[in-house]
Amino acid sequence: MSALRFTPVIQSLPASVPFVGPEIQERAKGRPYRARLGANENVFGPSPKAIRAMQDAAPEIWKYGDSASHDLKTALAAHLGVGVENLMIGAGIDGLLNSLARLLVEPGTPVVTSAGAYPTFNYHVNGYGGEIEAVPFREDHEDPLALLDRAHEVKAPLLYFCNPDNPMGSWHRADVVQGMIDTLTEQTVLCLDEAYLEFAPENTAPPIDVSRPNVIRMRTFSKAYGMAGARVGYAIGHADLIGAFNKVRNHFGMNRAAQAGALAALQDQDYLARTIANVAGARDRIAQIATENGLTPLPSATNFVTIDCGEGPEFAKAVVKALDDLDIFIRMPFVAPQNRCIRISAGRPEDLALLQTALPTALHNAREALT
Amino acid sequence: MSALRFTPVIQSLPASVPFVGPEIQERAKGRPYRARLGANENVFGPSPKAIRAMQDAAPEIWKYGDSASHDLKTALAAHLGVGVENLMIGAGIDGLLNSLARLLVEPGTPVVTSAGAYPTFNYHVNGYGGEIEAVPFREDHEDPLALLDRAHEVKAPLLYFCNPDNPMGSWHRADVVQGMIDTLTEQTVLCLDEAYLEFAPENTAPPIDVSRPNVIRMRTFSKAYGMAGARVGYAIGHADLIGAFNKVRNHFGMNRAAQAGALAALQDQDYLARTIANVAGARDRIAQIATENGLTPLPSATNFVTIDCGEGPEFAKAVVKALDDLDIFIRMPFVAPQNRCIRISAGRPEDLALLQTALPTALHNAREALT
Repeated sequence: MSALRFTPVIQSLPASVPFVGPEIQERAKGRPYRARLGANENVFGPSPKAIRAMQDAAPEIWKYGDSASHDLKTALAAHLGVGVENLMIGAGIDGLLNSLARLLVEPGTPVVTSAGAYPTFNYHVNGYGGEIEAVPFREDHEDPLALLDRAHEVKAPLLYFCNPDNPMGSWHRADVVQGMIDTLTEQTVLCLDEAYLEFAPENTAPPIDVSRPNVIRMRTFSKAYGMAGARVGYAIGHADLIGAFNKVRNHFGMNRAAQAGALAALQDQDYLARTIANVAGARDRIAQIATENGLTPLPSATNFVTIDCGEGPEFAKAVVKALDDLDIFIRMPFVAPQNRCIRISAGRPEDLALLQTALPTALHNAREALT
Repeated sequence: MSALRFTPVIQSLPASVPFVGPEIQERAKGRPYRARLGANENVFGPSPKAIRAMQDAAPEIWKYGDSASHDLKTALAAHLGVGVENLMIGAGIDGLLNSLARLLVEPGTPVVTSAGAYPTFNYHVNGYGGEIEAVPFREDHEDPLALLDRAHEVKAPLLYFCNPDNPMGSWHRADVVQGMIDTLTEQTVLCLDEAYLEFAPENTAPPIDVSRPNVIRMRTFSKAYGMAGARVGYAIGHADLIGAFNKVRNHFGMNRAAQAGALAALQDQDYLARTIANVAGARDRIAQIATENGLTPLPSATNFVTIDCGEGPEFAKAVVKALDDLDIFIRMPFVAPQNRCIRISAGRPEDLALLQTALPTALHNAREALT
């Protein structure tokens, strides 16, 4: 490969992967998972109307998707009370984070996030040569004041804040987030990742204000709308910042059926409400199972429950491994002290019945493995 | 926007769009096209088996797609006689060109292509600050020797060559392309865009040789397989170059249903053969319609026919406009001297019947408009 003239940034990068997907793990194991509760997918699935819309769009897939995502954007604009010029549709929040990093990050650019927050954000920042400034969580919450301080200190053009948070499931109230927005210096763009917002209490998100030039909010059809495999996310922000995405995005990159599905999903708010209720029930059930096994579930405003296993990271890792051996896919935080925990996505009753049966064995096996 | 600290490259970029999509033009006109023959989409559509596979995948869209695209890659590897490590799946060739440019282009990097070749390639190169070195076409063909000379002269790390070519529909024989590969200096990566290859005569593509470290071939399910809206393309090359995509790609960026659809499409080679025959018939019909109207169709190895209108670019533009007024969507080359032509995608008999009826009127109206 030596003769190939990769850019210096590319040469410096590891061939890293933010996450190993469950299909890869299944192939390595030689058998499928019985419960898929590791990627914060929405096991309750999309609205039947969204499924139908995607199926109806399949014969028309010979057409490129609308590069402006006009219909979806128009519906979202009405839903959110913003203009279409305040919305950018992308291939999931991942795709939008990639573009956002590209707009603001060049080699050596400092970018602030929380230590152990979403790895794919770091992956994109590093991918453009940026340098991650990681601020510790504070009592299992992202730490708004410390994040702001660090962004100010290193003059970061980009600050990532996820509310509700992944992987801890914790959240800040809207007034705290509004305080961040009000305190932000104008040279820092706040990327407010609200992927899990629909699962959170009412008072979690401050009002959308697209007059702020340096706040961009990311939302998705992957979580509450149950369409992770469709790859539809959206960014909300000032028209100037949103418009800049047009300089770098793949204009014809959106799957046509996915756009139709997202529109139908958005229009089925009754189904969304039922999903949210289902997820709330699943969270309670996971918490109950954890407690029954002597573990401590943390409060969650997401579609997963993070569970404090009460010991160090080695034990948490062993629990993840032991559940994996029982064909139950979960994940865990990867930075101390959060890595004392495991993270289990909301599942259907049948998924959680499998969890309930497996967890005592897994805990036993994890303890055995460590002795 | 002034306070936002976009990178210098981003600040230098226009808010440009490689193409305006037909939906945008339809909304501007206030009515739909009667024939959609401008974007080289495959109006004959995908295999019914691919449609069924996408429809069957819709209820499972709550799962992220397999980040390794294992099933599709394995099938493609067998089909092409290469290893899975020689294949990268991406969101269309557009998405793969974006990643390839990112791997090799930084501000000031010279990149060689043909003047008037695929604009989306230039868009991505410019998007990373690269400088396009454009080599003129030679008698409506891309000019292999001149491209190689220029790449050598400017020490380009990346050279783009599309065979068969878009927008002219012309092509070079396999031995000419093999000559390019053999002559290439090791410091230049040849990006061989073969989006239209399935429509070309047998002897158009040299054998795939993944031992070449600096040749990458791009193919797609958008054209012959009729799945432009699904966004599935693939790159074939040396494992080291292919592997480098893992440093920058969106690992979970592929639509799950699209992967299933592409696999089913690949497995229905009988349908592909019928599509190729349908397209060949449509090309003949377009050529006949052109000739009947005193225009000169150029030979084509693609799913479109480029037609020499026999006058300058103003007339060609007026013809495109006049057909647009009659609700027939076509496009045209945008660099002289190719911009004396219009470009019409292969359509079904009913699409071409509309073209046949409209073209005399359009030519008349175009001449009127210019007097």
